[in-house]
Amino acid sequence: MERPLILVTNDDSYKAPGIQLLAEIAQKYGDVVVLAPDAPQSAQSSALTVETPLRVNLLEEKEGYKCYKTNGKPTDCVKLALNKILLRTPDFIFSGINHGSNASVNVLYSGTMGAAIEGAIMGVPSVGFSIDSHSWQVDLSKIQPYIEELIELLFSKGMPKGNCWNVNFPKGEIKGLKVCRQSDGMWQKEYAKNTDPNGKDYYWLTGEYKNQEPEATDTDIWALDNGYGSLVPIQYDMTNYEYLKELQKKF
Amino acid sequence: MERPLILVTNDDSYKAPGIQLLAEIAQKYGDVVVLAPDAPQSAQSSALTVETPLRVNLLEEKEGYKCYKTNGKPTDCVKLALNKILLRTPDFIFSGINHGSNASVNVLYSGTMGAAIEGAIMGVPSVGFSIDSHSWQVDLSKIQPYIEELIELLFSKGMPKGNCWNVNFPKGEIKGLKVCRQSDGMWQKEYAKNTDPNGKDYYWLTGEYKNQEPEATDTDIWALDNGYGSLVPIQYDMTNYEYLKELQKKF
Repeated sequence: MERPLILVTNDDSYKAPGIQLLAEIAQKYGDVVVLAPDAPQSAQSSALTVETPLRVNLLEEKEGYKCYKTNGKPTDCVKLALNKILLRTPDFIFSGINHGSNASVNVLYSGTMGAAIEGAIMGVPSVGFSIDSHSWQVDLSKIQPYIEELIELLFSKGMPKGNCWNVNFPKGEIKGLKVCRQSDGMWQKEYAKNTDPNGKDYYWLTGEYKNQEPEATDTDIWALDNGYGSLVPIQYDMTNYEYLKELQKKF
Repeated sequence: MERPLILVTNDDSYKAPGIQLLAEIAQKYGDVVVLAPDAPQSAQSSALTVETPLRVNLLEEKEGYKCYKTNGKPTDCVKLALNKILLRTPDFIFSGINHGSNASVNVLYSGTMGAAIEGAIMGVPSVGFSIDSHSWQVDLSKIQPYIEELIELLFSKGMPKGNCWNVNFPKGEIKGLKVCRQSDGMWQKEYAKNTDPNGKDYYWLTGEYKNQEPEATDTDIWALDNGYGSLVPIQYDMTNYEYLKELQKKF
């Protein structure tokens, strides 16, 4: 039987420890093609490169493994791989391991999750993995067995079309995995204002996360805050069907 | 009574005819602040500018109206306005009128909708308006009465927290408005491959939209194809609750 074909991408660039471990893990389960940004593309959401041409360069090739870099964003990576680079549609897409949490509303800003959502749109079972630390030196060894458990679950049970998984891990000890809903939250105090040497103001993105439902115990934020890995099933159909019914009465 | 405060933004830049008409319409209903990109930022989704500083410049000020430009993306515009530029939280955010449809999965790539979704996260009733034509010369006069009808509906009925509206119009005659769900579709044949003068390959984004449910008559794509404006209620909670319940049984 043919080995599964697994596309691995991320938003931290092909150089990040997170994608290197994920590609290594993925090779236990199938043939792996890495196609990832050549430089960090954090917070790029599902953004696409429309105004400039994209390049793709092969960096490494060995039995069952290829690694490419591109000047594109994470969603570009998935589109390029599926349209032009891979010889067939991959069986799975793994994105990450992102250095930084993509829990709660961060799923909407995240390039890691942009790639996983693109996979879902393309009909490929896709998972975004993230760890709640921006440090490239963070210890990733504790999360490896949980990633393997999830990959094995995915291989055995599959994933219904239209979905992907948003998987986040705490940075310390892990008590287990929780299936959660996306926590409601928002960022506040988002800009540092400063003045440049020419006397002109500028703003630089920063911010504090505000949990809008600190009492809830079924959310991804709760899981991370309490030492669990979180799995949120994400759908790309953003329609609110209850509200749709209400609105139809008004027309 | 104080007039409502309305933030207007887009992804085509403050120079686009679409945003100029939307700002003009909005002034009938409240005090208006435009804060929009200084250059086109199409397909920027909910992307954020994290690596470079942002500038904000006041271009015009008159009674009940201000216009600012920034080097940021649409979601940056909303964050900058709410954090640093507006004296109070706006009552409404209108994004558009985008030159190009944001129906179906384009809601996920669209910077226009990125701004509206950001408004929803911030708790402000927000609407993204788009017309199904990329031409800046397209006749916008036919859609004005429908935009006004929708604004009046929004003012009288409000919008439940956690949602925004994705409103799209066909470019020709308009038969009316339909409340719809997000159509399932995907892009295919997405890159033109070419060779530069140095003999190196490059890829440029293009593509054909493929309707995944051509028989459905309750989608935004059906509405546009049949001469109706479409309103899809969009939620930023991307959790698939049905699938969540299924997954919980497996752990």
